[in-house]
Amino acid sequence: MKFFYYPAACSLADHIALIETGLAYQRVSIDRDKRTTDGRDFLALNPKGYIPALELDDGAVLTENPVILHYIAETSGKLLPAHGLARWRALEALAFMASEIHGAYQPFFRDFPELEKARAREKLARHFAILAEQMGDRPFLVGDEMTIADCYLFWVLMVAPKSGVDLPAPLQACFDRLKARPSVIRALAEEGLG
Amino acid sequence: MKFFYYPAACSLADHIALIETGLAYQRVSIDRDKRTTDGRDFLALNPKGYIPALELDDGAVLTENPVILHYIAETSGKLLPAHGLARWRALEALAFMASEIHGAYQPFFRDFPELEKARAREKLARHFAILAEQMGDRPFLVGDEMTIADCYLFWVLMVAPKSGVDLPAPLQACFDRLKARPSVIRALAEEGLG
Ligand SMILES: N[C@@H](CCC(=O)N[C@@H](CS)C(=O)NCC(=O)O)C(=O)O
Ligand SMILES: N[C@@H](CCC(=O)N[C@@H](CS)C(=O)NCC(=O)O)C(=O)O
Repeated sequence: MKFFYYPAACSLADHIALIETGLAYQRVSIDRDKRTTDGRDFLALNPKGYIPALELDDGAVLTENPVILHYIAETSGKLLPAHGLARWRALEALAFMASEIHGAYQPFFRDFPELEKARAREKLARHFAILAEQMGDRPFLVGDEMTIADCYLFWVLMVAPKSGVDLPAPLQACFDRLKARPSVIRALAEEGLG
Repeated sequence: MKFFYYPAACSLADHIALIETGLAYQRVSIDRDKRTTDGRDFLALNPKGYIPALELDDGAVLTENPVILHYIAETSGKLLPAHGLARWRALEALAFMASEIHGAYQPFFRDFPELEKARAREKLARHFAILAEQMGDRPFLVGDEMTIADCYLFWVLMVAPKSGVDLPAPLQACFDRLKARPSVIRALAEEGLG
């Protein structure tokens, strides 16, 4: 398995999940010209041009963060309850963060007009409140065990300060706990963010 | 199971999937004040306030279109290959449409400034091309059988004209085929769009 990423980008979620589950993989980053560090044209591998992407051993390339995370969980048998409501809640939190939060960071990543930033801040504040409410006083987003939803949550929370929106206390506490986890420490170090 | 929807909104995807799979469910719509037609406060049921939402028989409320569609498919054993790459491709297409296309329709739904509309059109054109490329000359998005990805695709394609972006020929042809399907005809009629 080859894992395509940029340092500090949303692929950090998958990087943490790969380390946490112990699956064997190779890390390959991409340069400004969309060449992979293993010498290939990334757009030929993944016409979407974005990361994360996961090249399976048969050459198929999977994209979309919630799906790559789900694949990592199913392949390893870790980081996702095998059945029941908790499994759906983890998948739901991933879909929520991917569709409702990730996109709302764009105005800050790409310096869009203030009108868009203000609208995004309002949306982010509402959505952080929903995540905090879902977490309650449990240690992770979906219960007492870490899931792939927490891997993505870590990146979401790491980036939040760029938006200027304050994190509710349960999310800040969760971020601090996740940050102390060996898999997270190692992923950050491997991406030069240690 | 209770299915919460607005006519013509993205919940149409789930509506089609529910009919296509033959699962038993009740349809409940929501009015302008976020009251459900079965007399409840929708925000109490689903603090996100948006549809689709699916209330399970034990009272749990599931949200997020890709996840509700996945739940419908798993519960019915229909509209999603049980394993293998085709299953991941269907989930990937759902995540792609939910995170990259649904959001890009916002400027047209809510009449955002022209700058945002232009940026969204450019993104939609690129993303429609990716879906068309993935479909190739197959009858459905992921192979020869209809999947939950096609249920969502139908709504995505139905709304596309609002953006002013032309559909590539394979997508237009797929839309026309899906539109002739009994489940789609019935869902449209039940939403008053017949
Ligand atoms: N829908 C995709 C979005 C992925 C995405 O936006 N990735 C960003 C990094 S966080 C990216 O690669 N952007 C394009 C670029 O930087 O060239 C997903 O959920 O995986
Ligand atoms: N991330 C959600 C988005 C759902 C959504 O945006 N639904 C729209 C209709 S297409 C909605 O209910 N908007 C809020 C409203 O109209 O009050 C999903 O994928 O299900």
